[in-house]
Amino acid sequence: MKQMPSRYRARFINSLSGFKSANLIATQDNQGNTNVAIFSSIVHLGASPALVGFIMRPDTGQRHTLDNIIETQTYTINQVSEAFYQQAHQTSARYSIDDSEFDMTGLECGYIDNVPFVKQSNLKYVVKLKEIMPIPLNNTQMVIGEITDVLCEESVIEKDGYIDIEALQTVTISGLDSYHSSQRLSRLSYAKPDIPLHEIESSK
Amino acid sequence: MKQMPSRYRARFINSLSGFKSANLIATQDNQGNTNVAIFSSIVHLGASPALVGFIMRPDTGQRHTLDNIIETQTYTINQVSEAFYQQAHQTSARYSIDDSEFDMTGLECGYIDNVPFVKQSNLKYVVKLKEIMPIPLNNTQMVIGEITDVLCEESVIEKDGYIDIEALQTVTISGLDSYHSSQRLSRLSYAKPDIPLHEIESSK
Repeated sequence: MKQMPSRYRARFINSLSGFKSANLIATQDNQGNTNVAIFSSIVHLGASPALVGFIMRPDTGQRHTLDNIIETQTYTINQVSEAFYQQAHQTSARYSIDDSEFDMTGLECGYIDNVPFVKQSNLKYVVKLKEIMPIPLNNTQMVIGEITDVLCEESVIEKDGYIDIEALQTVTISGLDSYHSSQRLSRLSYAKPDIPLHEIESSK
Repeated sequence: MKQMPSRYRARFINSLSGFKSANLIATQDNQGNTNVAIFSSIVHLGASPALVGFIMRPDTGQRHTLDNIIETQTYTINQVSEAFYQQAHQTSARYSIDDSEFDMTGLECGYIDNVPFVKQSNLKYVVKLKEIMPIPLNNTQMVIGEITDVLCEESVIEKDGYIDIEALQTVTISGLDSYHSSQRLSRLSYAKPDIPLHEIESSK
């Protein structure tokens, strides 16, 4: 691996972790200038309190996202779906600080409690900043926030609380740039020793 | 959200982050007793050095995984594919410390440099522990390691370094228990302002 050219290596190593989440983080500064950027590193940290994290790299155009989060302490996370995954990818271009990616990509900006979100997104939520944890090993940071409000149509929520994000046509990412739709194999029951698994039927 | 019953809330919040990676982490203790457990929180941290993280929860049967990693400092991460996703899910049952999940689930154990891996997995790699970062907000930990060796058939590696994990039938997880195969929409070119995106063709 050490002999791989840098871009080759980035694509190779990025493929190893498996499929990743595709989300847009929408923010604004104190003057109301909006920003939206795609992230594939959103990770569930816990349900109670409802915590979600993502990785901030030092060397990307996504720096405006973190500046805004530090300034306003709030942001929204917006799942990316098939209908606008190309616009979502385009947010990764290095636009000037004066240009909102909303204007540049055709994504539409809405507001909840004065926090911007992506109107096209079928599942989005408001997050309040809790902590920024430095990762000195590679000069990245994990940004951790608490989920306070969720916007999602009720028809895709199963009776047991599971949200059918496939029905929302949420996409998934592999590597740096490959986008995929999904096809459910099954939901599996809670695993116990000596008891065979069974499939969980839909109960929407 | 505060009024949601605990299990309902867990399923609901776990659905919000989007699609997740499906990986088995294989470990052993100093006596050679093996363990394998499924994780959906593997996250790419950086390509140079090649760092990968995952979240350890305090309240699960996965504790043996962390004990072994601390003891031996090494582990393998094994992508889960369609052919064995049910066996992979079954590893989350709370087996006794004396039972190896390999024996209990029918997953086959191989070794590379004396570190166990899952033979059924089409893409797996050896990881050396670098750091365990506590997340006091919810008493979890992020375990960070460096990738040292990758086992993968060369035919699925594109000329630019991207690994076609869809061709390996790697699965993705939504929520706590839903498994999905994938269908590529496209690979998209590196985004630049004012230049339209194009699709990247396969070059295997």
